[in-house]
Amino acid sequence: MKLRFTKMQGLGNDFVVLDGVRQHIQLSREQYRQLGDRHFGIGCDQILLVEPPSNAEADFRYRIFNADGGEVEQCGNGSRCFVRFVTEHGLTDKREIVVETARGLIRPRLEEDGSVTVDMGRPRFTPAEIPFLAEQDQVCHPLQLGDQTVLISAVSMGNPHAVRIVEDVDTAPVATQGPQIESHPRFPARVNAGFMQIVQRDRIRLRVYERGAGETLACGTGACAAVVSGIRQGLLDARVQVQARGGQLIIEWAGDSHPVWMTGPAVTVFEGEIEI
Amino acid sequence: MKLRFTKMQGLGNDFVVLDGVRQHIQLSREQYRQLGDRHFGIGCDQILLVEPPSNAEADFRYRIFNADGGEVEQCGNGSRCFVRFVTEHGLTDKREIVVETARGLIRPRLEEDGSVTVDMGRPRFTPAEIPFLAEQDQVCHPLQLGDQTVLISAVSMGNPHAVRIVEDVDTAPVATQGPQIESHPRFPARVNAGFMQIVQRDRIRLRVYERGAGETLACGTGACAAVVSGIRQGLLDARVQVQARGGQLIIEWAGDSHPVWMTGPAVTVFEGEIEI
Repeated sequence: MKLRFTKMQGLGNDFVVLDGVRQHIQLSREQYRQLGDRHFGIGCDQILLVEPPSNAEADFRYRIFNADGGEVEQCGNGSRCFVRFVTEHGLTDKREIVVETARGLIRPRLEEDGSVTVDMGRPRFTPAEIPFLAEQDQVCHPLQLGDQTVLISAVSMGNPHAVRIVEDVDTAPVATQGPQIESHPRFPARVNAGFMQIVQRDRIRLRVYERGAGETLACGTGACAAVVSGIRQGLLDARVQVQARGGQLIIEWAGDSHPVWMTGPAVTVFEGEIEI
Repeated sequence: MKLRFTKMQGLGNDFVVLDGVRQHIQLSREQYRQLGDRHFGIGCDQILLVEPPSNAEADFRYRIFNADGGEVEQCGNGSRCFVRFVTEHGLTDKREIVVETARGLIRPRLEEDGSVTVDMGRPRFTPAEIPFLAEQDQVCHPLQLGDQTVLISAVSMGNPHAVRIVEDVDTAPVATQGPQIESHPRFPARVNAGFMQIVQRDRIRLRVYERGAGETLACGTGACAAVVSGIRQGLLDARVQVQARGGQLIIEWAGDSHPVWMTGPAVTVFEGEIEI
């Protein structure tokens, strides 16, 4: 079977995007794994499958598969690429698109400058929802790492995040503490570990050690989690520029029960066709 | 500029192949680097540029660029992909093709089963030609690594190789001794470090720590260097199956002034088009 695909990236987080609206696509886990392989396949962090919606309210549905073939819930960089994809491929002419994802409906919006704003949903802080083993929701929790205790905030953005404030991200112990936090027994579903440097009230620098992936160039939900936790601690304003290794994002959160909004770039790298 | 390309692989060593016969291609070092980037570009180990020959005897010329944009001399896995490429794209109907490379003319041959046999040139053992700092050509040389002395053979296959025989490649100290050998002061141009396990007289297992690249899935010239050094030590027959991490190769060498022949697979993974 010949499969057309588009390779895209958002802040260096890269995606193979498949049009399941115009092509009928039914791939096995092994085939997704093969597409994701950087030497024997196309190579990407994740595969996005765009499909017709099953819900009358939605314009599209999309599903996300990791390079290991497993299906995952949500990805901020991916939803920006999704919007550019359906626009550039003429699948819609709307600027605000209603999309069915594994965690419900989202409404990403194409901005005038080509960047995309995505509703990343409401952050959740209740330990059981993250999941995180703690007596109660607190802005900061002490976390034991070997013989050291660090302070972290625990946030769910659909996936679990632990955020630690550091003096300088360049010298932060991401390679050593990242995996320790990721697999900490108090995070039963493991966790993404963020290291945030607060530059000023509207600007942070961020590195994220992603669950199952190691340090990445940029993590959309990680940027949301970091800004939300900084706002909750009274350290950041409601609109923050996040400098990740792969580029810049703008994160906005009005607090409380509001959703988090993320604006950032999405780029088509190339078009291709593979026999699978 | 829109650039058509083909992504190929030989034993997991992967290439972006560009048809510079039908398209005029003149890229900067930065553009090659961009094509080679796995997140922001196409991604590959190396880029092969197929061009018309400048020599009347040759059918084609090809040039090889590393993912960092620098031009390199020779690559066995790449020359197999080159042959499949010019055949599949209808650039020739010959089965034996004369090609101009940075190290002179080579004559790769497409086999009935689709595998490709490549003349890898004559091995050279003279220390100055490798280059290797030694009094004279010997089958084996002791090499000091910290407080340990290991025995290596030094061979040039157009690029320098040091080959060490080990009991078991799975437990061989590739990650630690690989970089030590690679940067050993007795190899002034640095060296590719091979770790060879002799299974029987016609079968070896091999891991190679490549100069500037670290351990790779398979190194064509490394397989040649290993087999040649085993034959010179009287441990191997003239035709040897090499099991690398990325797959199998057959290496043949009749000794003395004969060239080394390598037979192995080459696979087209996908076709694409990129704006550059």
